[in-house]
Amino acid sequence: MALIVQKFGGTSVGSIERIEQVADKVKKFREAGDDLVVVLSAMSGETNRLIDLARQISDQPVPRELDVIVSTGEQVTIALLAMALMKRGVPAVSYTGNQVRILTDSAHNKARILQIDDQKIRNDLKEGRVVVVAGFQGVDENGNITTLGRGGSDTTGVALAAALKADECQIYTDVDGVYTTDPRVVSQAQRLDKITFEEMLEMASLGSKVLQIRAVEFAGKYNVPLRVLHSFKEGPGTLITIDEEESMEQPIISGIAFNRDEAKLTIRGVPDTPGVAFKILGPISAANIEVDMIVQNVAHDNTTDFTFTIHRNDYQAALQVLETTAREIGAREVSGDTKIAKVSIVGVGMRSHAGVASRMFEALAKESINIQMISTSEIKVSVVIEEKYLELAVRALHTAFELDAARQGE
Amino acid sequence: MALIVQKFGGTSVGSIERIEQVADKVKKFREAGDDLVVVLSAMSGETNRLIDLARQISDQPVPRELDVIVSTGEQVTIALLAMALMKRGVPAVSYTGNQVRILTDSAHNKARILQIDDQKIRNDLKEGRVVVVAGFQGVDENGNITTLGRGGSDTTGVALAAALKADECQIYTDVDGVYTTDPRVVSQAQRLDKITFEEMLEMASLGSKVLQIRAVEFAGKYNVPLRVLHSFKEGPGTLITIDEEESMEQPIISGIAFNRDEAKLTIRGVPDTPGVAFKILGPISAANIEVDMIVQNVAHDNTTDFTFTIHRNDYQAALQVLETTAREIGAREVSGDTKIAKVSIVGVGMRSHAGVASRMFEALAKESINIQMISTSEIKVSVVIEEKYLELAVRALHTAFELDAARQGE
Repeated sequence: MALIVQKFGGTSVGSIERIEQVADKVKKFREAGDDLVVVLSAMSGETNRLIDLARQISDQPVPRELDVIVSTGEQVTIALLAMALMKRGVPAVSYTGNQVRILTDSAHNKARILQIDDQKIRNDLKEGRVVVVAGFQGVDENGNITTLGRGGSDTTGVALAAALKADECQIYTDVDGVYTTDPRVVSQAQRLDKITFEEMLEMASLGSKVLQIRAVEFAGKYNVPLRVLHSFKEGPGTLITIDEEESMEQPIISGIAFNRDEAKLTIRGVPDTPGVAFKILGPISAANIEVDMIVQNVAHDNTTDFTFTIHRNDYQAALQVLETTAREIGAREVSGDTKIAKVSIVGVGMRSHAGVASRMFEALAKESINIQMISTSEIKVSVVIEEKYLELAVRALHTAFELDAARQGE
Repeated sequence: MALIVQKFGGTSVGSIERIEQVADKVKKFREAGDDLVVVLSAMSGETNRLIDLARQISDQPVPRELDVIVSTGEQVTIALLAMALMKRGVPAVSYTGNQVRILTDSAHNKARILQIDDQKIRNDLKEGRVVVVAGFQGVDENGNITTLGRGGSDTTGVALAAALKADECQIYTDVDGVYTTDPRVVSQAQRLDKITFEEMLEMASLGSKVLQIRAVEFAGKYNVPLRVLHSFKEGPGTLITIDEEESMEQPIISGIAFNRDEAKLTIRGVPDTPGVAFKILGPISAANIEVDMIVQNVAHDNTTDFTFTIHRNDYQAALQVLETTAREIGAREVSGDTKIAKVSIVGVGMRSHAGVASRMFEALAKESINIQMISTSEIKVSVVIEEKYLELAVRALHTAFELDAARQGE
């Protein structure tokens, strides 16, 4: 008998019919003998409706009060599901974040979970009840309602699974698992049976938006086996778990992530003095602009070139900041490009295999795709290329790393 | 500087515009120097929408879970009002029933308030904040969300006023006060400046649906001065307070209440033995039917006639029960009538004035209205008449007791 935490997102509980379907699914698991804690989001659209109500009062809703409003979304779905379960003869009880008690800090609209009291839930499970918990919300030590920020329901699921030492945390969503890359770009993309937390983090932060990054971090930290599944289709999904060092059987690369949300900025002819990187990036960060990749070439003639990427939405703001900086530090010129894309190969297999990067560069070279920037980590190699080559690059890499074929036998 | 509890109902907070208007009103009071606790209902229609959602899952929604859902209605309005106040520069904070902590029993959907923790509210008031509290809801000792049942927001207002020893509890509604009778029936009906709790209870229970009976009982018990006012029109409203024994100036009758929701049942030729009333009414009450007026005539020939009224909706059920009883106790016959109306004159002045009842009967006799039943209490005389004479009777009594004229000088 396993203890499973199941999380259903907004579209999975988006209507009464969907909630009834979720109840059927939960009932099936219950009848198979599992202990179940179900975490729900608000009905899809509801959170936006509530935020919109608040915005009608104020463009900048008071964060504490916004949380009071927004948290009602999940409060409705948990009770509806508990009712639907009881209608099916499955004993069930709903709890808000406050009722569980999911203690968070007081950062309204983006709170972090500090502690979960598992006493009530354990008692209910012992008495055979399915426990339905509101995702995305908690309460601070002064009893103020908090929310974890958008998508926080995944984090609630994982945190509950960690607190309860659950056997698995299942995230039900509208895809049937994590893929080697986006199937809309590469038709031969394959569902992965398994992926490590680290790989998932690199995949997620690079644009494969299946799971909340925070939830994956949390799951990795507490070693909670996480499974991504389709809400209404049968299938094993993808298990996200620790690296079990089975490198022998493991493919070198697990997947190919990409991102076309970035823009590139270059400042040339920067006097090469200590602290120059801070002089350039300090004002950018002071303007609340997040920097992703950073490349600095070796100096020649006592000047250096410095390139970094930012979110495309921040391009104009960053360009202005950089031009001011260029004048101040006596740099030669500033240029930028919004028509770029980032492509990354991700895989823990890289650790034990040499030549992965050059194999990537070779594959791109074969297609005559010019590489503008390169950045590497232990389990990832990212390159920036011209945006128009994105699909071509992803397909070429998918084939080069044998991801098309590797799983065809399944 | 007074401490005032203000309660606004669903129509008063039925839209963003209305909530903004309420915020303007509250701000004005705050600027006049009053400490304010504001109790809100859900936006009009919202509670029904939520109940309807639950009903789509189950015809008989689980009471505990229904409370979880329904309580979200007020949770939204309190945060919206707190935001609207802060937008106006008025410091404010919202609290759910659980956050205040309004402790209730565990009778879901119809809970009763046991205790209110006033500590948080007092601290907020001391720091100059307007405290906005969700009406109609509380929490039981196990942390389950409860609701007080429909209209319970009035009760929340009065209970908070009692706990805080507020100077006044103001109930804002869609009428500008309590009237001598229904203005739709008697155009010369006058707004009362003042009425006693006892009178208000008789008026409310007899059909003047301005205030929840429970709220008035509560206010009377804890001697909380209660004022009924119009949400958006200026005016002094009606103050409901204790009888200050100013009988000299007081009109004998404060108002005329009426009710056409009742039906009458008569059982004739009942053997006049001890315990016969229980034999007749016991089965009625066992069938969960509430009895209002009861009249038993003196016996003759060792039999007696017994008449009582019930809600018209219960007529068929009560008739069946009574026919069974009649056979069992050997009564002669059972008859009934649904075309009746009850008219009552209400006033604490009755206590010090003789002949009030006969003045009532005289007024009805002048209009040739036959009286079918009479029932009296210390401050009320009720009669049952044929329904078609209802309006005529109310107008005749309004004039006979000088209610048309009494307030014309105002």
